[in-house]
Amino acid sequence: MPKPSKREDLLVSAMETFHARGFHGTGIKEIADAAGAPKGSFYNHFSSKEECAIEALRLFGAERRLDMLADTTSPPLERIRRHFEFLRDETVDRDFTRGCMFGNFATGVVDHSEEIRSAVADSLQTWSGALAVALTEARRDGAVRADLDPDSTARFLVNTWEGTLIEARATKSAAAFDTFFSMVFEVVLR
Amino acid sequence: MPKPSKREDLLVSAMETFHARGFHGTGIKEIADAAGAPKGSFYNHFSSKEECAIEALRLFGAERRLDMLADTTSPPLERIRRHFEFLRDETVDRDFTRGCMFGNFATGVVDHSEEIRSAVADSLQTWSGALAVALTEARRDGAVRADLDPDSTARFLVNTWEGTLIEARATKSAAAFDTFFSMVFEVVLR
Repeated sequence: MPKPSKREDLLVSAMETFHARGFHGTGIKEIADAAGAPKGSFYNHFSSKEECAIEALRLFGAERRLDMLADTTSPPLERIRRHFEFLRDETVDRDFTRGCMFGNFATGVVDHSEEIRSAVADSLQTWSGALAVALTEARRDGAVRADLDPDSTARFLVNTWEGTLIEARATKSAAAFDTFFSMVFEVVLR
Repeated sequence: MPKPSKREDLLVSAMETFHARGFHGTGIKEIADAAGAPKGSFYNHFSSKEECAIEALRLFGAERRLDMLADTTSPPLERIRRHFEFLRDETVDRDFTRGCMFGNFATGVVDHSEEIRSAVADSLQTWSGALAVALTEARRDGAVRADLDPDSTARFLVNTWEGTLIEARATKSAAAFDTFFSMVFEVVLR
């Protein structure tokens, strides 16, 4: 039976490579090389590149720090702001490259793989679900407009974030993030 | 000298193929085949795949119908709504595939081609510029909130649209569009 740690190594390498080079730009050999594993060993752990990409997408999702949204030691609106600041800082630190794997797969892969399409939809749903919980709390506290539907608003914020990454990557500028924060926190939610 | 019409054929074919299969998924042979041209003739018209992609991006931009935003025979807010309805219908008609070439290139190519990155940034800027003109008129008419900055709001709407396409493609559902229209026209602009 293969060692679990080698699977972990391959998965982390897959996430990094898919994130940096996209699904179509990533080969199994590159993933194996980056993990210091022989190419043939890949199939001891994953049945296909698609399956590996879906696992990598889940690992990427786990690093989105949705736990920040559920940390009730700070007010819900503050948590939402910090969550997006965390995501912004990650992109700025990467010099506006890579973006979000959900958006990358949604624009580059979903038309051609039903399995990946479904995994991207689940990832977006999990994310907007966590945001909706915090927005429901914020509405209860009177911190956001009472007429906002938390579920729709959460999906709207996720989508707006994904599009903000598109502008930030195309312009290599944080101006897109500044607009996101001012429009979301001073217009949409107020 | 090559006939201009053959260059047009190649360009239309390039736009269709890049849109359907992405930059990395498209080969010069595919573009030439779809245009009924020999592969070798491609380089009579374009110096590289990148140059062709940038021309294809411009052609795609020209089909975004920005003229709808400048048609002063209807009120500016109505024009903005119809513009996004036109874009929505295009995606619904394609069964939620393909998305927007600006967003596709921004998530899949901009990290690896400075020329394409710059062309995507220009495309987004042209689009948000046309929206900003209509938003300025709408603000003057009192049809949108007086405290909205037309330029920031225009970029925010473009980004939100790009992210809405991500959800629509991942879920193969028009729900993302419904949320876009209700959030933009009932919350953001009011």
